[in-house]
Amino acid sequence: MQAIAVEQGRGRPAIRERERPDPAAGEVLVRTLRVGVDGTDHEVIAGTHGEFPAHEEYLVLGHEAVGVVEDGGSTRFSAGDVVVPTVRRPPPGEENGYFERGEPDMAPAGQYLERGIVGAHGYMAEYFVTDAAFLLEVPPSLADVGFLVEPLSIAVKAVELATASRSSFTWHPESAAVLGNGSLGLLTLAYLKRVKGYDRLYCVGRRDRPDPTIDIIEELGATYVDSRETPVSEIPDAHEPVDLVFEATGYAKHAFEAIDALAPNGVGALLGVPEPWEFEVDGGRLHREMVLHNKALVGSVNSRARHFEASAEALSAFPGWFFDRLVTGICGLDDLAAAFDDDDTTIKTAVQFSEYEERR
Amino acid sequence: MQAIAVEQGRGRPAIRERERPDPAAGEVLVRTLRVGVDGTDHEVIAGTHGEFPAHEEYLVLGHEAVGVVEDGGSTRFSAGDVVVPTVRRPPPGEENGYFERGEPDMAPAGQYLERGIVGAHGYMAEYFVTDAAFLLEVPPSLADVGFLVEPLSIAVKAVELATASRSSFTWHPESAAVLGNGSLGLLTLAYLKRVKGYDRLYCVGRRDRPDPTIDIIEELGATYVDSRETPVSEIPDAHEPVDLVFEATGYAKHAFEAIDALAPNGVGALLGVPEPWEFEVDGGRLHREMVLHNKALVGSVNSRARHFEASAEALSAFPGWFFDRLVTGICGLDDLAAAFDDDDTTIKTAVQFSEYEERR
Repeated sequence: MQAIAVEQGRGRPAIRERERPDPAAGEVLVRTLRVGVDGTDHEVIAGTHGEFPAHEEYLVLGHEAVGVVEDGGSTRFSAGDVVVPTVRRPPPGEENGYFERGEPDMAPAGQYLERGIVGAHGYMAEYFVTDAAFLLEVPPSLADVGFLVEPLSIAVKAVELATASRSSFTWHPESAAVLGNGSLGLLTLAYLKRVKGYDRLYCVGRRDRPDPTIDIIEELGATYVDSRETPVSEIPDAHEPVDLVFEATGYAKHAFEAIDALAPNGVGALLGVPEPWEFEVDGGRLHREMVLHNKALVGSVNSRARHFEASAEALSAFPGWFFDRLVTGICGLDDLAAAFDDDDTTIKTAVQFSEYEERR
Repeated sequence: MQAIAVEQGRGRPAIRERERPDPAAGEVLVRTLRVGVDGTDHEVIAGTHGEFPAHEEYLVLGHEAVGVVEDGGSTRFSAGDVVVPTVRRPPPGEENGYFERGEPDMAPAGQYLERGIVGAHGYMAEYFVTDAAFLLEVPPSLADVGFLVEPLSIAVKAVELATASRSSFTWHPESAAVLGNGSLGLLTLAYLKRVKGYDRLYCVGRRDRPDPTIDIIEELGATYVDSRETPVSEIPDAHEPVDLVFEATGYAKHAFEAIDALAPNGVGALLGVPEPWEFEVDGGRLHREMVLHNKALVGSVNSRARHFEASAEALSAFPGWFFDRLVTGICGLDDLAAAFDDDDTTIKTAVQFSEYEERR
């Protein structure tokens, strides 16, 4: 079967012939439908993030997958089920409390592998196998866009963690600023608006009009904020202080500017993974502001089963036009370059491995 | 009756003759037993914090009080009840949602007064009146140390808020570092050890041995960390990464160093109120660390009724030796200077206004 992998030292993805895997006991064989491409894939390809599997000179890419069960073996899955796999796995031969509790997203570095990212092959292949414990059934209606379940689950977890941080008092958030108008930012914007009931939403980017992401932002009823004109810390003056800041840029200054953008008792969810960068902050003022107005900053990474479930449910509630505009390319194996393109017209792409045919 | 007040522009507390107040309907007249002195009082006296009451040229000090009901009027209180008042009050003639919900600690600046601090006279007087809604009955056994209910309630609220921020996953904290060995730090240390079940505690200060605060730290079974030798960010290497950092120094760099001191999934509670101070941080690394290890920073100010209740309960569980060592001075009105002393032998002082006599 064909797979998409990056070789050590190679710096670009290529098609690779692999044997179709055989499911062991407790495992499920999945025929891959589509696998999304995101910023993490680009970092893995560039070699700035992730890890090759032990004793391997290549890594099969892909962690945002949707597929169809080909062989459910003795598991709860049956052939034809539409499924989405989670990403983290315990290190080989090891279990740990995080996985035992079903909270792999809380495991620290070294206590997990990540399929397609850290030490384990991903889902960009015509077939993959996975332990049934790491597989979620989704409605057949998500066969086309189910590769968005994983990325949105990251946002679901971060919003849950941020909201939990406000659970010891009465908190009814109405406004949020999403920092970043990439696919994660736009998915989060739709989620906050359509599912979480936020009334007033702002999405911060650095693009000139006309721009397809700005169109999506506005179609969702949110306000586009150009951070070249309105820095994050000035959102309160230009618009309003917001209850939630959702940082999805990896731009480290945003973590600190978020404190100023927040309304009293607000929370900033941090999701970006910046490189080291030293800069000056008014640490005294920011510290004081956090204390006197009960503000919080919450870092969040990865997600667990219940976030995948909530994500699938949320996606089912999103309007069709949103997916039509968000997904700018579904590419076949004969058009790899387009799948991994990352220019201003690209919002979200996926590689298609096979077609979904509804069960009769 | 006699009161202790600071006059505008005066910079030191003085005794002032005032009329004994008459309770209105719904109010309680309290005979003051003791009122604690803390860092906020020193800031109010120095004029760097707080606000004089409207149209007044002086402010009666004191926000950490314990007293005995002299006249409960038609309220639920009876003469002889030992009571502790809360600090925040709604602005005159105004109610707002924060007070209506019983969460005045979440009110932003401008939506509250603070007795003895912001725009309202405090409790340093032979008698005070307060709306019964802002009064808590405590056991008679707390007549002597009930002035510690308010300061410990601040820690109770901060620990609650920090713990809530970890409530969306399994979190069983075992270790904590308390930054600051002042009275709030020591109260918090005793609270985390005796009530919250933390196993391994560190308390960070900048004092040479022999020192009475270090003695208390060690008697509580905690480890003293001299930050001149071991910076907060190096606590993991010198000791262990901790689940909770409790910052009670107002030293702004500690807020950022806390991120490095934390174990994965840990939380830093910030309580200090520093002045503006610009300095350099590796914002990229700190941001990344918060995200990849799900860390949080939570600012916290003030407290509400349930935190006062939990504080009174906690104090009732503290051993007698702790109070004997923590309270380094109970001063009469004839010895004001000693009450407001703040040298290395002072840990916690209170002004005594009257003696408690047990009901027969």
